[in-house]
Amino acid sequence: MKVISFCISFLIFSISMAGQNNASYSAGKIIESIIRQTASGTIPNTVDVIKVGDPKTPVTGIVTTMFATMDVLRKAVEMNCNLIIAHEPLFYNHLDETKQFENDPVFLEKKKFIDDNKLVIWRFHDYIHRLKPDAIDFGMAKKLGWEKYNPDKEFNRFLIPETTLRELLVELKRIFPKSTFNVVGDPDMKLSKVAFSAGAPGSSQHIRLLEDPTVDIVLAGEVPQWETYEYVRDAVSQNRKKAIIFLGHVTSEEPGMEYCAEWLKGFIKDLPVNFVASGPSYWTY
Amino acid sequence: MKVISFCISFLIFSISMAGQNNASYSAGKIIESIIRQTASGTIPNTVDVIKVGDPKTPVTGIVTTMFATMDVLRKAVEMNCNLIIAHEPLFYNHLDETKQFENDPVFLEKKKFIDDNKLVIWRFHDYIHRLKPDAIDFGMAKKLGWEKYNPDKEFNRFLIPETTLRELLVELKRIFPKSTFNVVGDPDMKLSKVAFSAGAPGSSQHIRLLEDPTVDIVLAGEVPQWETYEYVRDAVSQNRKKAIIFLGHVTSEEPGMEYCAEWLKGFIKDLPVNFVASGPSYWTY
Repeated sequence: MKVISFCISFLIFSISMAGQNNASYSAGKIIESIIRQTASGTIPNTVDVIKVGDPKTPVTGIVTTMFATMDVLRKAVEMNCNLIIAHEPLFYNHLDETKQFENDPVFLEKKKFIDDNKLVIWRFHDYIHRLKPDAIDFGMAKKLGWEKYNPDKEFNRFLIPETTLRELLVELKRIFPKSTFNVVGDPDMKLSKVAFSAGAPGSSQHIRLLEDPTVDIVLAGEVPQWETYEYVRDAVSQNRKKAIIFLGHVTSEEPGMEYCAEWLKGFIKDLPVNFVASGPSYWTY
Repeated sequence: MKVISFCISFLIFSISMAGQNNASYSAGKIIESIIRQTASGTIPNTVDVIKVGDPKTPVTGIVTTMFATMDVLRKAVEMNCNLIIAHEPLFYNHLDETKQFENDPVFLEKKKFIDDNKLVIWRFHDYIHRLKPDAIDFGMAKKLGWEKYNPDKEFNRFLIPETTLRELLVELKRIFPKSTFNVVGDPDMKLSKVAFSAGAPGSSQHIRLLEDPTVDIVLAGEVPQWETYEYVRDAVSQNRKKAIIFLGHVTSEEPGMEYCAEWLKGFIKDLPVNFVASGPSYWTY
Protein backbone atom coordinates (compact mmCIF):
# COMPACT_ATOMS: atom_id res chain seq x y z
CA MET A 1 0.00 0.00 0.00
CA LYS A 2 2.86 2.32 0.87
CA VAL A 3 4.39 1.66 -2.57
CA ILE A 4 1.12 2.41 -4.34
CA SER A 5 0.56 5.63 -2.41
CA PHE A 6 4.14 6.65 -3.11
CA CYS A 7 3.69 6.00 -6.86
CA ILE A 8 0.41 7.94 -6.99
CA SER A 9 1.83 10.94 -5.20
CA PHE A 10 4.96 10.82 -7.36
CA LEU A 11 2.75 10.78 -10.45
CA ILE A 12 0.73 13.76 -9.20
CA PHE A 13 3.97 15.59 -8.49
CA SER A 14 5.36 14.78 -11.93
CA ILE A 15 2.17 15.99 -13.56
CA SER A 16 2.12 19.18 -11.51
CA MET A 17 5.70 19.93 -12.51
CA ALA A 18 5.22 18.96 -16.15
CA GLY A 19 5.85 21.61 -18.71
CA GLN A 20 7.72 23.88 -16.32
CA ASN A 21 11.36 24.76 -16.74
CA ASN A 22 13.58 24.99 -13.67
CA ALA A 23 13.32 28.72 -13.37
CA SER A 24 9.56 28.58 -13.02
CA TYR A 25 9.42 26.25 -10.02
CA SER A 26 8.01 28.56 -7.39
CA ALA A 27 8.73 28.03 -3.70
CA GLY A 28 5.02 27.59 -3.02
CA LYS A 29 4.61 24.92 -5.69
CA ILE A 30 7.67 22.98 -4.52
CA ILE A 31 6.45 23.07 -0.92
CA GLU A 32 2.99 21.83 -1.96
CA SER A 33 4.61 18.99 -3.84
CA ILE A 34 6.84 18.03 -0.91
CA ILE A 35 3.82 17.87 1.40
CA ARG A 36 2.03 15.73 -1.19
CA GLN A 37 5.05 13.40 -1.29
CA THR A 38 4.78 12.75 2.45
CA ALA A 39 1.40 11.11 1.71
CA SER A 40 0.09 12.65 4.93
CA GLY A 41 -3.40 14.01 5.30
CA THR A 42 -3.61 17.76 5.92
CA ILE A 43 -2.33 18.63 9.39
CA PRO A 44 -4.49 21.35 10.97
CA ASN A 45 -2.65 24.28 12.55
CA THR A 46 0.65 22.94 11.32
CA VAL A 47 3.82 24.97 11.96
CA ASP A 48 4.98 23.87 8.49
CA VAL A 49 4.42 27.22 6.80
CA ILE A 50 6.62 29.77 5.06
CA LYS A 51 8.13 31.82 7.88
CA VAL A 52 9.57 34.58 5.72
CA GLY A 53 9.54 35.03 1.94
CA ASP A 54 7.27 35.14 -1.08
CA PRO A 55 5.83 31.78 -2.16
CA LYS A 56 5.96 32.99 -5.78
CA THR A 57 9.76 33.26 -5.64
CA PRO A 58 11.33 31.15 -8.42
CA VAL A 59 13.59 28.66 -6.67
CA THR A 60 17.25 28.50 -7.70
CA GLY A 61 18.24 25.78 -5.25
CA ILE A 62 17.22 24.15 -1.97
CA VAL A 63 19.05 23.84 1.34
CA THR A 64 17.82 21.48 4.05
CA THR A 65 18.97 22.12 7.59
CA MET A 66 18.05 21.70 11.25
CA PHE A 67 18.03 25.42 12.14
CA ALA A 68 18.18 28.25 9.60
CA THR A 69 20.90 30.02 11.59
CA MET A 70 22.67 33.15 10.33
CA ASP A 71 25.56 30.91 9.25
CA VAL A 72 23.30 28.49 7.39
CA LEU A 73 21.58 31.41 5.61
CA ARG A 74 24.95 32.86 4.52
CA LYS A 75 26.05 29.46 3.19
CA ALA A 76 22.76 29.08 1.31
CA VAL A 77 23.31 32.44 -0.39
CA GLU A 78 26.89 31.46 -1.29
CA MET A 79 25.51 28.27 -2.85
CA ASN A 80 22.85 30.25 -4.76
CA CYS A 81 20.06 28.38 -2.96
CA ASN A 82 17.06 30.52 -2.03
CA LEU A 83 14.62 27.97 -0.55
CA ILE A 84 15.71 26.96 2.94
CA ILE A 85 13.89 24.00 4.45
CA ALA A 86 14.48 23.94 8.20
CA HIS A 87 13.14 21.44 10.71
CA GLU A 88 12.99 23.92 13.58
CA PRO A 89 11.87 27.52 14.15
CA LEU A 90 13.54 30.52 12.55
CA PHE A 91 12.92 32.99 15.38
CA TYR A 92 13.57 31.30 18.71
CA ASN A 93 10.11 29.99 19.65
CA HIS A 94 7.94 27.13 18.44
CA LEU A 95 5.36 29.30 16.68
CA ASP A 96 7.91 31.81 15.32
CA GLU A 97 6.10 34.66 17.03
CA THR A 98 7.99 37.88 16.34
CA LYS A 99 5.89 40.62 17.96
CA GLN A 100 8.24 40.71 20.95
CA PHE A 101 11.23 41.20 18.63
CA GLU A 102 10.07 44.41 16.91
CA ASN A 103 13.03 46.31 18.36
CA ASP A 104 15.39 43.39 18.81
CA PRO A 105 18.64 43.90 16.87
CA VAL A 106 19.33 40.18 16.38
CA PHE A 107 15.90 39.57 14.88
CA LEU A 108 16.02 42.71 12.74
CA GLU A 109 19.43 41.87 11.25
CA LYS A 110 18.40 38.29 10.49
CA LYS A 111 15.12 39.40 8.93
CA LYS A 112 16.93 42.02 6.81
CA PHE A 113 19.43 39.41 5.58
CA ILE A 114 16.56 37.16 4.49
CA ASP A 115 14.68 40.02 2.81
CA ASP A 116 17.78 41.48 1.10
CA ASN A 117 18.63 38.08 -0.36
CA LYS A 118 14.99 37.27 -1.25
CA LEU A 119 15.17 33.96 0.60
CA VAL A 120 12.18 31.77 1.40
CA ILE A 121 12.30 29.94 4.72
CA TRP A 122 9.91 27.03 5.10
CA ARG A 123 9.61 24.85 8.17
CA PHE A 124 9.34 21.12 7.54
CA HIS A 125 8.53 19.66 10.92
CA ASP A 126 5.10 18.13 11.32
CA TYR A 127 4.95 16.59 7.84
CA ILE A 128 8.42 15.05 7.79
CA HIS A 129 7.54 13.18 10.99
CA ARG A 130 4.46 11.80 9.17
CA LEU A 131 6.51 10.02 6.53
CA LYS A 132 6.43 6.22 6.84
CA PRO A 133 8.92 5.56 8.31
CA ASP A 134 9.39 8.94 10.04
CA ALA A 135 12.25 10.44 8.02
CA ILE A 136 13.90 11.88 11.13
CA ASP A 137 14.05 8.41 12.70
CA PHE A 138 15.22 6.85 9.46
CA GLY A 139 17.94 9.49 9.06
CA MET A 140 19.27 8.67 12.52
CA ALA A 141 19.18 4.91 11.83
CA LYS A 142 21.24 5.50 8.68
CA LYS A 143 23.67 7.80 10.48
CA LEU A 144 24.24 5.20 13.20
CA GLY A 145 24.44 2.36 10.67
CA TRP A 146 21.68 0.65 12.59
CA GLU A 147 19.16 -0.06 9.79
CA LYS A 148 20.07 -3.75 10.11
CA TYR A 149 19.24 -3.79 13.85
CA ASN A 150 15.69 -2.62 13.35
CA PRO A 151 13.19 -5.45 13.78
CA ASP A 152 9.93 -3.66 12.90
CA LYS A 153 11.14 -1.19 10.25
CA GLU A 154 9.83 1.74 12.28
CA PHE A 155 13.45 2.80 12.93
CA ASN A 156 12.86 3.95 16.50
CA ARG A 157 13.62 0.62 18.21
CA PHE A 158 16.91 -1.21 17.75
CA LEU A 159 18.26 -4.53 18.92
CA ILE A 160 22.02 -3.97 18.80
CA PRO A 161 24.80 -6.41 19.76
CA GLU A 162 25.25 -6.31 23.54
CA THR A 163 27.48 -3.47 24.65
CA THR A 164 27.90 -1.21 27.68
CA LEU A 165 26.68 2.33 28.14
CA ARG A 166 30.32 3.47 28.12
CA GLU A 167 31.08 1.70 24.83
CA LEU A 168 27.91 3.03 23.24
CA LEU A 169 28.98 6.57 24.16
CA VAL A 170 32.38 6.03 22.52
CA GLU A 171 30.61 4.96 19.34
CA LEU A 172 28.21 7.93 19.46
CA LYS A 173 31.14 10.31 19.95
CA ARG A 174 32.83 8.81 16.92
CA ILE A 175 29.73 9.60 14.85
CA PHE A 176 29.00 13.00 16.47
CA PRO A 177 32.45 14.31 17.46
CA LYS A 178 31.21 17.89 18.06
CA SER A 179 28.39 16.89 20.43
CA THR A 180 28.39 16.46 24.18
CA PHE A 181 25.90 14.00 25.60
CA ASN A 182 24.07 14.29 28.92
CA VAL A 183 23.85 10.86 30.45
CA VAL A 184 21.92 9.33 33.35
CA GLY A 185 22.92 5.74 34.01
CA ASP A 186 25.66 3.39 35.15
CA PRO A 187 28.49 3.44 32.57
CA ASP A 188 29.01 -0.32 33.05
CA MET A 189 25.36 -1.17 32.41
CA LYS A 190 25.00 -3.78 29.68
CA LEU A 191 22.44 -3.02 27.02
CA SER A 192 21.15 -4.13 23.67
CA LYS A 193 17.55 -2.83 23.45
CA VAL A 194 17.63 0.81 22.37
CA ALA A 195 14.71 3.18 21.81
CA PHE A 196 15.17 6.43 19.90
CA SER A 197 13.08 9.48 20.77
CA ALA A 198 13.98 12.42 18.54
CA GLY A 199 13.68 16.09 19.48
CA ALA A 200 11.59 17.17 22.43
CA PRO A 201 8.42 15.04 22.59
CA GLY A 202 8.10 15.51 26.38
CA SER A 203 8.90 13.28 29.31
CA SER A 204 5.74 11.17 29.00
CA GLN A 205 7.10 9.54 25.87
CA HIS A 206 10.52 8.95 27.44
CA ILE A 207 9.04 7.50 30.61
CA ARG A 208 6.65 5.23 28.71
CA LEU A 209 9.65 3.86 26.84
CA LEU A 210 11.67 3.41 30.03
CA GLU A 211 8.79 1.56 31.71
CA ASP A 212 8.79 -0.93 28.83
CA PRO A 213 10.74 -4.10 29.69
CA THR A 214 11.81 -4.35 26.04
CA VAL A 215 13.83 -1.12 26.40
CA ASP A 216 17.20 -0.85 28.18
CA ILE A 217 18.11 2.67 27.14
CA VAL A 218 16.58 5.67 25.40
CA LEU A 219 18.51 7.89 23.02
CA ALA A 220 16.69 11.21 23.31
CA GLY A 221 16.97 14.78 22.13
CA GLU A 222 16.20 17.05 25.07
CA VAL A 223 13.69 17.51 27.91
CA PRO A 224 13.32 19.87 30.87
CA GLN A 225 15.76 18.78 33.55
CA TRP A 226 13.07 18.41 36.23
CA GLU A 227 11.34 15.71 34.18
CA THR A 228 12.94 12.59 32.64
CA TYR A 229 16.36 13.38 34.13
CA GLU A 230 15.05 12.99 37.68
CA TYR A 231 12.98 9.94 36.80
CA VAL A 232 16.02 8.08 35.49
CA ARG A 233 18.18 9.31 38.39
CA ASP A 234 15.66 7.70 40.78
CA ALA A 235 15.41 4.55 38.64
CA VAL A 236 19.20 4.11 38.71
CA SER A 237 19.26 4.79 42.45
CA GLN A 238 16.73 1.95 42.80
CA ASN A 239 19.19 -0.33 40.96
CA ARG A 240 17.07 -0.59 37.86
CA LYS A 241 18.96 -1.36 34.66
CA LYS A 242 17.78 1.70 32.78
CA ALA A 243 19.62 4.64 31.25
CA ILE A 244 19.10 7.63 29.00
CA ILE A 245 21.43 9.57 26.74
CA PHE A 246 20.40 13.09 25.75
CA LEU A 247 22.10 13.70 22.43
CA GLY A 248 20.98 17.35 22.32
CA HIS A 249 18.09 18.55 20.18
CA VAL A 250 20.17 19.36 17.09
CA THR A 251 22.18 16.13 17.17
CA SER A 252 19.03 14.04 17.58
CA GLU A 253 17.30 15.40 14.46
CA GLU A 254 20.01 16.76 12.18
CA PRO A 255 20.69 13.35 10.58
CA GLY A 256 17.01 13.37 9.62
CA MET A 257 17.42 16.66 7.76
CA GLU A 258 20.56 15.27 6.09
CA TYR A 259 18.48 12.34 4.89
CA CYS A 260 15.74 14.79 3.88
CA ALA A 261 18.03 16.22 1.18
CA GLU A 262 18.59 12.73 -0.20
CA TRP A 263 14.85 12.03 -0.13
CA LEU A 264 14.07 15.30 -1.94
CA LYS A 265 16.60 14.44 -4.65
CA GLY A 266 14.49 11.35 -5.36
CA PHE A 267 11.78 13.52 -6.90
CA ILE A 268 13.29 17.00 -7.38
CA LYS A 269 15.60 16.28 -10.26
CA ASP A 270 16.12 19.67 -11.86
CA LEU A 271 17.24 21.80 -8.93
CA PRO A 272 20.29 21.58 -6.68
CA VAL A 273 19.38 20.20 -3.24
CA ASN A 274 22.00 20.47 -0.48
CA PHE A 275 22.08 19.62 3.20
CA VAL A 276 23.85 22.23 5.34
CA ALA A 277 24.60 21.26 8.95
CA SER A 278 23.75 23.85 11.57
CA GLY A 279 25.62 21.75 14.14
CA PRO A 280 25.23 22.00 17.93
CA SER A 281 24.39 25.52 19.13
CA TYR A 282 26.61 25.28 22.22
CA TRP A 283 29.98 24.13 23.39
CA THR A 284 30.58 22.66 26.83
CA TYR A 285 33.02 23.29 29.62
CA MET B 1 10.23 48.69 55.79
CA LYS B 2 11.78 45.33 55.03
CA VAL B 3 13.27 45.22 58.54
CA ILE B 4 9.93 46.08 60.14
CA SER B 5 8.06 43.46 58.14
CA PHE B 6 10.72 40.89 59.04
CA CYS B 7 10.43 41.74 62.75
CA ILE B 8 6.64 41.52 62.70
CA SER B 9 6.60 38.17 60.98
CA PHE B 10 9.32 36.86 63.31
CA LEU B 11 7.22 37.96 66.27
CA ILE B 12 4.13 36.21 64.92
CA PHE B 13 6.20 33.07 64.37
CA SER B 14 7.64 33.21 67.88
CA ILE B 15 4.15 33.64 69.32
CA SER B 16 2.75 30.79 67.27
CA MET B 17 5.55 28.50 68.44
CA ALA B 18 5.39 29.66 72.07
CA GLY B 19 4.61 27.02 74.66
CA GLN B 20 5.35 24.10 72.34
CA ASN B 21 8.14 21.64 72.91
CA ASN B 22 10.19 20.42 69.97
CA ALA B 23 8.29 17.18 69.53
CA SER B 24 5.01 19.00 69.01
CA TYR B 25 6.15 21.12 66.04
CA SER B 26 3.99 19.66 63.32
CA ALA B 27 5.08 19.77 59.68
CA GLY B 28 2.00 21.84 58.82
CA LYS B 29 2.71 24.42 61.50
CA ILE B 30 6.36 24.76 60.51
CA ILE B 31 5.41 25.18 56.84
CA GLU B 32 2.84 27.87 57.74
CA SER B 33 5.48 29.70 59.71
CA ILE B 34 8.06 29.51 56.92
CA ILE B 35 5.55 30.98 54.46
CA ARG B 36 4.80 33.74 56.97
CA GLN B 37 8.54 34.45 57.27
CA THR B 38 8.77 35.09 53.53
CA ALA B 39 6.48 38.12 54.11
CA SER B 40 4.77 37.29 50.80
CA GLY B 41 1.07 37.64 50.23
CA THR B 42 -0.77 34.39 49.56
CA ILE B 43 0.14 33.01 46.14
CA PRO B 44 -2.93 31.54 44.43
CA ASN B 45 -2.54 28.07 42.91
CA THR B 46 0.95 27.78 44.31
CA VAL B 47 2.87 24.55 43.82
CA ASP B 48 4.22 25.03 47.36
CA VAL B 49 2.13 22.32 48.99
CA ILE B 50 2.84 19.07 50.81
CA LYS B 51 3.40 16.53 48.04
CA VAL B 52 3.33 13.43 50.24
CA GLY B 53 2.92 13.09 54.01
CA ASP B 54 0.69 14.06 56.89
CA PRO B 55 0.87 17.73 57.96
CA LYS B 56 0.25 16.62 61.56
CA THR B 57 3.53 14.67 61.61
CA PRO B 58 5.72 15.86 64.50
CA VAL B 59 8.94 17.04 62.90
CA THR B 60 12.24 15.54 64.09
CA GLY B 61 14.46 17.50 61.73
CA ILE B 62 14.48 19.38 58.42
CA VAL B 63 16.39 18.78 55.21
CA THR B 64 16.52 21.42 52.47
CA THR B 65 17.44 20.27 48.98
CA MET B 66 17.00 21.01 45.29
CA PHE B 67 15.33 17.70 44.36
CA ALA B 68 14.06 15.13 46.86
CA THR B 69 15.78 12.30 44.99
CA MET B 70 15.88 8.72 46.30
CA ASP B 71 19.41 9.43 47.53
CA VAL B 72 18.39 12.64 49.32
CA LEU B 73 15.45 10.84 50.97
CA ARG B 74 17.74 8.04 52.21
CA LYS B 75 20.18 10.58 53.64
CA ALA B 76 17.33 12.44 55.36
CA VAL B 77 16.21 9.20 57.04
CA GLU B 78 19.81 8.47 58.13
CA MET B 79 19.94 11.96 59.67
CA ASN B 80 16.58 11.41 61.41
CA CYS B 81 15.02 14.33 59.50
CA ASN B 82 11.44 13.76 58.40
CA LEU B 83 10.50 17.12 56.85
CA ILE B 84 12.09 17.50 53.40
CA ILE B 85 11.90 20.95 51.85
CA ALA B 86 12.63 20.68 48.13
CA HIS B 87 12.70 23.47 45.58
CA GLU B 88 11.60 21.30 42.69
CA PRO B 89 9.00 18.59 42.02
CA LEU B 90 9.05 15.18 43.65
CA PHE B 91 7.52 13.22 40.77
CA TYR B 92 9.05 14.41 37.51
CA ASN B 93 6.60 17.10 36.40
CA HIS B 94 5.89 20.65 37.55
CA LEU B 95 2.53 19.90 39.14
CA ASP B 96 3.59 16.53 40.59
CA GLU B 97 0.77 14.79 38.76
CA THR B 98 0.97 11.07 39.50
CA LYS B 99 -2.05 9.56 37.76
CA GLN B 100 0.15 8.39 34.90
CA PHE B 101 2.47 6.62 37.34
CA GLU B 102 -0.11 4.32 38.96
CA ASN B 103 1.72 1.26 37.65
CA ASP B 104 5.19 2.80 37.36
CA PRO B 105 7.75 0.88 39.43
CA VAL B 106 10.03 3.89 40.02
CA PHE B 107 7.17 6.01 41.35
CA LEU B 108 5.74 3.16 43.45
CA GLU B 109 9.08 2.40 45.11
CA LYS B 110 9.76 6.07 45.88
CA LYS B 111 6.25 6.58 47.25
CA LYS B 112 6.58 3.46 49.42
CA PHE B 113 9.90 4.65 50.81
CA ILE B 114 8.32 7.98 51.78
CA ASP B 115 5.27 6.30 53.33
CA ASP B 116 7.28 3.63 55.16
CA ASN B 117 9.51 6.29 56.71
CA LYS B 118 6.59 8.66 57.42
CA LEU B 119 8.33 11.53 55.63
CA VAL B 120 6.70 14.82 54.72
CA ILE B 121 7.80 16.36 51.42
CA TRP B 122 7.02 20.04 50.96
CA ARG B 123 7.88 22.09 47.91
CA PHE B 124 9.31 25.53 48.58
CA HIS B 125 9.42 27.14 45.17
CA ASP B 126 7.07 30.07 44.63
CA TYR B 127 7.45 31.55 48.11
CA ILE B 128 11.24 31.36 48.33
CA HIS B 129 11.48 33.37 45.12
CA ARG B 130 9.25 36.01 46.81
CA LEU B 131 11.76 36.73 49.57
CA LYS B 132 13.43 40.14 49.29
CA PRO B 133 16.01 39.58 47.96
CA ASP B 134 14.99 36.35 46.22
CA ALA B 135 16.75 33.73 48.37
CA ILE B 136 17.73 31.66 45.32
CA ASP B 137 19.51 34.67 43.80
CA PHE B 138 21.09 35.57 47.10
CA GLY B 139 22.31 31.99 47.61
CA MET B 140 24.04 32.09 44.23
CA ALA B 141 25.63 35.47 44.98
CA LYS B 142 27.02 34.05 48.22
CA LYS B 143 28.24 30.87 46.50
CA LEU B 144 30.06 32.91 43.84
CA GLY B 145 31.40 35.37 46.44
CA TRP B 146 29.79 38.14 44.38
CA GLU B 147 27.74 39.94 47.07
CA LYS B 148 30.23 42.81 46.83
CA TYR B 149 29.71 43.17 43.06
CA ASN B 150 25.99 43.74 43.37
CA PRO B 151 25.04 47.38 42.84
CA ASP B 152 21.30 47.27 43.56
CA LYS B 153 21.12 44.55 46.22
CA GLU B 154 18.75 42.53 44.09
CA PHE B 155 21.51 39.94 43.61
CA ASN B 156 20.65 39.11 40.02
CA ARG B 157 22.92 41.70 38.37
CA PHE B 158 26.65 41.88 39.00
CA LEU B 159 29.42 44.21 37.94
CA ILE B 160 32.51 42.01 38.25
CA PRO B 161 36.14 42.92 37.47
CA GLU B 162 36.69 42.60 33.71
CA THR B 163 37.44 39.04 32.67
CA THR B 164 36.93 36.80 29.64
CA LEU B 165 34.27 34.19 29.07
CA ARG B 166 36.99 31.54 29.26
CA GLU B 167 38.31 32.81 32.60
CA LEU B 168 34.81 33.08 34.02
CA LEU B 169 34.21 29.42 33.12
CA VAL B 170 37.41 28.39 34.92
CA GLU B 171 36.15 30.19 38.03
CA LEU B 172 32.68 28.61 37.76
CA LYS B 173 34.24 25.15 37.38
CA ARG B 174 36.26 25.75 40.52
CA ILE B 175 33.04 26.49 42.40
CA PHE B 176 30.94 23.77 40.72
CA PRO B 177 33.46 21.02 39.87
CA LYS B 178 30.77 18.39 39.18
CA SER B 179 28.83 20.52 36.69
CA THR B 180 29.21 20.88 32.94
CA PHE B 181 28.18 24.18 31.43
CA ASN B 182 26.57 24.70 28.02
CA VAL B 183 28.02 27.84 26.52
CA VAL B 184 27.13 30.04 23.55
CA GLY B 185 29.68 32.79 22.98
CA ASP B 186 33.23 33.62 22.01
CA PRO B 187 35.60 32.32 24.73
CA ASP B 188 37.79 35.43 24.31
CA MET B 189 34.90 37.86 24.79
CA LYS B 190 35.61 40.39 27.52
CA LEU B 191 32.86 40.88 30.05
CA SER B 192 32.05 42.50 33.35
CA LYS B 193 28.24 42.96 33.36
CA VAL B 194 26.61 39.70 34.40
CA ALA B 195 22.91 38.93 34.80
CA PHE B 196 21.76 35.84 36.69
CA SER B 197 18.56 34.06 35.67
CA ALA B 198 17.90 31.05 37.91
CA GLY B 199 16.04 27.90 36.93
CA ALA B 200 13.84 27.85 33.86
CA PRO B 201 11.99 31.17 33.56
CA GLY B 202 11.68 30.86 29.76
CA SER B 203 13.54 32.45 26.90
CA SER B 204 11.66 35.77 27.08
CA GLN B 205 13.46 36.65 30.30
CA HIS B 206 16.86 35.60 28.90
CA ILE B 207 16.36 37.53 25.67
CA ARG B 208 15.14 40.66 27.48
CA LEU B 209 18.35 40.55 29.51
CA LEU B 210 20.51 39.99 26.43
CA GLU B 211 18.86 42.91 24.63
CA ASP B 212 19.86 45.17 27.54
CA PRO B 213 23.07 47.11 26.83
CA THR B 214 23.96 46.89 30.53
CA VAL B 215 24.31 43.09 30.21
CA ASP B 216 27.28 41.31 28.60
CA ILE B 217 26.44 37.78 29.65
CA VAL B 218 23.63 35.81 31.25
CA LEU B 219 24.22 32.99 33.71
CA ALA B 220 21.12 30.86 33.30
CA GLY B 221 19.69 27.55 34.46
CA GLU B 222 18.13 25.84 31.46
CA VAL B 223 15.83 26.53 28.49
CA PRO B 224 14.58 24.57 25.48
CA GLN B 225 17.39 24.41 22.95
CA TRP B 226 15.29 25.92 20.13
CA GLU B 227 14.87 29.13 22.14
CA THR B 228 17.63 31.21 23.78
CA TYR B 229 20.39 28.94 22.46
CA GLU B 230 19.56 29.84 18.86
CA TYR B 231 19.06 33.51 19.67
CA VAL B 232 22.55 33.80 21.15
CA ARG B 233 24.05 31.69 18.35
CA ASP B 234 22.67 34.23 15.85
CA ALA B 235 23.77 37.19 18.01
CA VAL B 236 27.34 35.85 18.13
CA SER B 237 27.28 35.18 14.40
CA GLN B 238 26.31 38.86 13.95
CA ASN B 239 29.46 39.79 15.95
CA ARG B 240 27.52 41.04 18.94
CA LYS B 241 29.39 40.88 22.24
CA LYS B 242 26.86 38.72 24.01
CA ALA B 243 27.10 35.29 25.59
CA ILE B 244 25.17 32.87 27.77
CA ILE B 245 26.25 30.12 30.13
CA PHE B 246 23.69 27.47 31.02
CA LEU B 247 24.77 26.19 34.42
CA GLY B 248 22.13 23.45 34.43
CA HIS B 249 18.91 23.70 36.41
CA VAL B 250 20.23 22.09 39.59
CA THR B 251 23.48 24.05 39.65
CA SER B 252 21.64 27.33 39.11
CA GLU B 253 19.33 26.94 42.13
CA GLU B 254 21.02 24.54 44.52
CA PRO B 255 23.09 27.28 46.20
CA GLY B 256 19.75 28.95 46.97
CA MET B 257 18.55 25.85 48.80
CA GLU B 258 21.87 25.68 50.64
CA TYR B 259 21.30 29.27 51.77
CA CYS B 260 17.69 28.33 52.62
CA ALA B 261 18.94 26.04 55.41
CA GLU B 262 20.95 28.93 56.84
CA TRP B 263 17.93 31.24 56.63
CA LEU B 264 15.68 28.69 58.35
CA LYS B 265 18.19 28.35 61.20
CA GLY B 266 17.67 32.06 61.82
CA PHE B 267 14.20 31.37 63.22
CA ILE B 268 13.95 27.60 63.72
CA LYS B 269 16.18 27.20 66.75
CA ASP B 270 15.02 23.97 68.32
CA LEU B 271 15.19 21.54 65.42
CA PRO B 272 18.13 20.35 63.31
CA VAL B 273 18.11 21.94 59.85
CA ASN B 274 20.45 20.50 57.21
CA PHE B 275 21.11 21.15 53.55
CA VAL B 276 21.61 18.00 51.46
CA ALA B 277 22.89 18.49 47.91
CA SER B 278 21.10 16.52 45.22
CA GLY B 279 23.84 17.50 42.77
CA PRO B 280 23.57 17.42 38.97
CA SER B 281 21.30 14.65 37.69
CA TYR B 282 23.53 13.81 34.71
CA TRP B 283 27.12 13.32 33.71
CA THR B 284 28.48 14.31 30.34
CA TYR B 285 30.51 12.61 27.67
